[in-house]
Formats: sequence, C-alpha cells, structure tokens
Amino acid sequence: MILTTDDGHVRTITLNRPDAMNAFNGQQFDDLTEALLAAQAEAAVRVVIITGTGRAFTTGLDLSEVGKDIEPPKHGVPGLFNTLIDFPKPLLLAINGFGVGFGATMIGLADMSFMAQSARLRCPFTSLGVVGEAAATYLFPRMMGHQAANWMLYSSAWFDANECKESGLVLDVFPDDALLDEVMTRAQTMAANSPVALIRSKELSMGPVREKIRATMDAENAVYDELHGGPENMEAINAFLEKREPDFSKLA
Amino acid sequence: MILTTDDGHVRTITLNRPDAMNAFNGQQFDDLTEALLAAQAEAAVRVVIITGTGRAFTTGLDLSEVGKDIEPPKHGVPGLFNTLIDFPKPLLLAINGFGVGFGATMIGLADMSFMAQSARLRCPFTSLGVVGEAAATYLFPRMMGHQAANWMLYSSAWFDANECKESGLVLDVFPDDALLDEVMTRAQTMAANSPVALIRSKELSMGPVREKIRATMDAENAVYDELHGGPENMEAINAFLEKREPDFSKLA
Amino acid sequence: MILTTDDGHVRTITLNRPDAMNAFNGQQFDDLTEALLAAQAEAAVRVVIITGTGRAFTTGLDLSEVGKDIEPPKHGVPGLFNTLIDFPKPLLLAINGFGVGFGATMIGLADMSFMAQSARLRCPFTSLGVVGEAAATYLFPRMMGHQAANWMLYSSAWFDANECKESGLVLDVFPDDALLDEVMTRAQTMAANSPVALIRSKELSMGPVREKIRATMDAENAVYDELHGGPENMEAINAFLEKREPDFSKLA
Repeated sequence: MILTTDDGHVRTITLNRPDAMNAFNGQQFDDLTEALLAAQAEAAVRVVIITGTGRAFTTGLDLSEVGKDIEPPKHGVPGLFNTLIDFPKPLLLAINGFGVGFGATMIGLADMSFMAQSARLRCPFTSLGVVGEAAATYLFPRMMGHQAANWMLYSSAWFDANECKESGLVLDVFPDDALLDEVMTRAQTMAANSPVALIRSKELSMGPVREKIRATMDAENAVYDELHGGPENMEAINAFLEKREPDFSKLA
Repeated sequence: MILTTDDGHVRTITLNRPDAMNAFNGQQFDDLTEALLAAQAEAAVRVVIITGTGRAFTTGLDLSEVGKDIEPPKHGVPGLFNTLIDFPKPLLLAINGFGVGFGATMIGLADMSFMAQSARLRCPFTSLGVVGEAAATYLFPRMMGHQAANWMLYSSAWFDANECKESGLVLDVFPDDALLDEVMTRAQTMAANSPVALIRSKELSMGPVREKIRATMDAENAVYDELHGGPENMEAINAFLEKREPDFSKLA
Repeated sequence: MILTTDDGHVRTITLNRPDAMNAFNGQQFDDLTEALLAAQAEAAVRVVIITGTGRAFTTGLDLSEVGKDIEPPKHGVPGLFNTLIDFPKPLLLAINGFGVGFGATMIGLADMSFMAQSARLRCPFTSLGVVGEAAATYLFPRMMGHQAANWMLYSSAWFDANECKESGLVLDVFPDDALLDEVMTRAQTMAANSPVALIRSKELSMGPVREKIRATMDAENAVYDELHGGPENMEAINAFLEKREPDFSKLA
C-alpha cells in the first residue's frame, strides 16, 4: 500500500491504495509510519516527499475498515502523528488529488506542501458533528491567518488549489502533470545542501512549536471523544447513510 | 440604534445610527452587547453577522457624546470587548462602509470579516497621540504580518478594501450591493453544520489566544491612560478643533 | 562607511562601502550601531531608514576581513543585533540591491522593509553547513508562514523582489529609481504623527516578541557554534575556495 523510491538523496513515499482513494486503514497507518522511520534512519536520505497514486492524495481515515483490524496496529494514528511531528528532515507533500480530513490536515505537519491544479481539499469535521485534528486548529490559523482557517474549519467547504495557495495553506500550485517534477526539483535543491544544516535548521524553525502542536492535539482529541457518537455526530452519519442532508435543528 | 433580523439560523445585527456614522455612545455599547448576549443564549442562532446602515460601518467612539451619559452604561466598552472576545459562535463582520478606530480593530475579535468594495478603514491612534485598542497591537500582526500591521498602526493612513484584503485584514471584498448576500451565503453554509461542532471548533481555534488578547488590551489601556490628556494628545485635539495640522515638534 | 542624512524628522542611514558590497567588518558593525544609538537618542529623529549605496544592500559578514580587526570592536555583531531589537522608533529598510545573510535576516528586526525591483535576497546558511541567524528561524515563519520561510532557509535559493513581496518578507516593491522616494514618503507620513505615540505603539506591537527573539538567537548561536568549523562547513568553504560544488555525501 506504500511505494518507496529514491532519486539521489530524495526519497518519495507514495500512498498506493487508489481503489480506496488512498484512505488509511490500520495497516496503512503502520506502513506509512514505518516508511517515515526508515527514511529518518537512513543517512543517505536527506529530503522526503509524500504523494499519492490515482485521483486522491488521501481521503483520510477509511471509515469502511474501522474496527476490521484483526490485531491492533503497531503505530496507528497516534504513532503516525508523532512520527510526522518529530520527523527531523525536510518533509514535502505533493498533493496530487483530493485530500479530505487527514489528507488536508497533514499539511500542517509538513515543512511545505505543493498541489496539483485539479486537486481539492476539504476539512469536513463540522459537517460530521466533530472537530479538527492533527493540530489544524492551531497550525491552520498560524499558516493562513485565523480568518481563512476558521472558514475552512467551520464551513466544511471544498478549497480548490488556487484558494489553498492564496490562503497560505500550500506553497505553490502546478499543472497536474508537472507536480511531481516541480516538487522533485525543489527537493533536490534542498538535498544538495549540508545534511546536518538541514536537520538543525528544521529543528530551529519547527522544533519550538512541537510542544504547542501536541497540546493542541490533546485538546482536539478530548473534544473529539466527547462529540463522537453524540446526537449530532449520529445524525450526520445517519444522514450520510440515508443519502439525505443532516438536520441538526431538533438536536440543538 | 440596533436592528436584529433572523434568516434561518443566522442572526444579523445591524448598527443603525447612520446620522452619527454608527458611532458608539454609551447606549450603543450596551445595545450591541445585549444583542450579542441574546444571540449567544438562543440555541436557534448558530452564526451571527454584524453590519451597519448608511455610509459607515462604524466610526468607533462617538467623541461628541463622551460624558453625556445620564447614568453609567451597564456594559460600556469593557463589557462589549469582553462579550466579543468570549462570543462562542461564529461571528462575521460585513463592513459596509467607513470603519474608524473600533470600526477597524473589531475585526481582530471576529472570526472573519468581509468588506464592501467602496469601504475604507483607518486606525488613527498615532495621529491623535494615543495607541491602539482591542488588542490590535497583537491581533493585527498575527493576521497581517507585523509589517502591514505596523504600517496601519504607525501611519494612521486609510486602507482601501483591496489593501485590507491583500494584507490579510479581511477575508474577501465584494461589490457594495453584493456584500450582504455574499456574507449571508457563507453564514448559511456554516449554519448548516453541527451547532455543537461549530462552537467547539471556535473554542479550539480562538480560545487559546483569549488570554493573550486580554493581556494585550490591559497593556494597551495602561498606555492609553498615560497618553490621554497629555501634551501630544491635547495638541492633536486642538489641531482638530482649529482645523489645522498638529505640530508635535515643540513637544517632543 | 556610514552616511547619515536628515529630511525633517526622518533620518536615513546609508551603508556606504560599495566596493565591498557593503559587507560588514568590525568597524561597520560598530559604526551602524553608533548611528542607530544616536538616532535613538535624538528627540528630533522620529523615523529611521537604513539603505545602501551601489549594487548591494549588504552581503552580510565580510568574510575577507574576519580576524583582521586590530582591536576588538566595541559593539560587534551582538551589539548591533541588540540595538536593532531594542530600537524604539519605527525602523524601515530600503533594500536597494543584493542582500545576503544578515542583509536578508535584518528584515525580521525592522518594522517594515521595502525592496527595489531588481534586488534579490539570499539566506545561504544550509549551503555553508550552518544555520540561520538574527532569529530568522522564528521571525521568518511568523512573517511568511512556515512554508515559505522553510523554503528560504532550507534551500539557500535566491528570492527575487516579487517572491519577497508575495511571501510577506517585504511590504512592497518599487522600481529601482523610485525606491528611496517611496520609502521616504511613507516615513514622512509616520513622522507627522505623535512621536510618543509612535514609540509606544512600537513597544506594544514589537516589544512582546523581543524575549522570544533573544531566546531564538541564543538557540541559533549555539547550533552555529557547534556546526562552524565542522566537516560540512569546512567542505562548503573548501568547495567555495576551489570553485567547485560541495559534496556532502561522504560526510553524512
């Protein structure tokens, strides 16, 4: 479900479960975590790109597989999030297609993200009766200003690639068939520099916010646990299954 | 002086003292505070818009009425500011016209603000020998970057709608006659989502900065109290009354 | 090596060592520091502009003069940095040409910066096996968002004037021959306002981040001291002297 290729000192990790829109089941969380830990450990890898195959970057948690794991995942969601937060080398996202949920919030944990012109992103949390994750409620205001971040997190609306660039959520947008080449060019530019300087530069710029990221995730998880399975979350899920719009009026 | 209308789950609060450019006297502070507290208390209200009638959004404190209140206001300036800071539901500004002083700094306390193409904003504090308010000295750098915020707060210059959008002070600009419809469309998009998720999302994104907002307001108020009535503030007021440019040279 | 001119209440300090691209030797650090301290002390000076003569704004530390000072500088690098951090009046940079190293990172310590259309900036730290300085690892993410800041600090790439403006690193860009006039116009607009209000406004907006700036500089300096003279820094210097690309592969 994960492909790994090296081009010089740049490693590309590709989410490769296109029939499931690269959604994450327990195995996928573990496989991506292991791939990142391997890239972290290998001295020859200086810069890492994450991308996806098919129409989606990733649509986040695979709801159809929740509870189907035969045994508990080794790393799971917390393991992947912590590995991303602590990842010591420059980490770039090449967002090739749809990103939903964690497919959008992962941006906050990367050093920089680039997006295909046709890709779109959505944080559907409020439409599902829950709240953001991966510290997006802290990182998105920091990246986009609180106004654009609030709009994305309150509205559950789709953002097209130009909106993502203009709001500061991604660094640049490229034609679909140029995305990987453009991101690779930038990765190679960085990888030509001193490896120890790259690691220490990231530590200086991203390290000081790690504590705040973890505290925000804890706060988000506490609210998520409170709202998950509650009446508005259930109404949203039932509406989805019954192919109708949710009606939260009677519950408020 | 305040109009209130509901459209589904969206409440619009309209500052309606157009002959006074919607400037705030003691009654206006109390009325807006009461309107916000009512919107906060009513479960059916999920999203709130503040706008104004006439040529101005609001020109801030009505200097012509300072000291004219027969009895002290119930909420006053501190009551309104605290109500805005703690307001738990998405709060949108539809800036229909001129905004001066609090008519500009209120933006920092809202979740997102939109502006009519012909509207303009000004923070005239330094021209009056005083300093910013409503935590603008913290919130504007956070929203606009410190360079644009410093320019706005040091220069006392007017910002047109495009400058406000480009600098990140407002989220978007619309033709004057489309402003209210555009803001209402966005408000309805948000209001269709889970009410509890909206409230908890705002708590996660805006809550963690409330302490910093209050601390900044305290610092701003302390400086304001020190400068208000001082020689440079008096020179500015006298120059205004005498319809001449202030001359601070002999006072420095 | 430093020219000082006054236009009303605006003082312009010009780096004037064009044959050395206005690079800083020990004397230059001291002279600029003394010029800033004088501008700070004189009540008639309300706003200060720093610019340069010739093709460069400044290329930072003059490596060709390191170790050549007959006696230790009075202020040196720490003295200049501390003077910039604590400078109490609005401080504008008019970046007339190339800026490298401190010629770019100084932007974070100024209130606002403007750039000539043909000017370019570069933070070459990772290409030299070292890390950022002047709190750029904190201030650049705060100004540009972490993505553009990371790209600038990890890549060691040149940024042209438009990239600097779009990313938020400078406030505006002007044709080369209009730069000084445009910056002076803005400086005069600010200088017409109450001097005490300007100083207190800056204290409110820039003061609260000074502690974080100093802590970041300490962290940067500790990493710099660790990497300076190390194998990757030496490889970078040797490659430069031998006019070849550095090869960090064997050292990683």
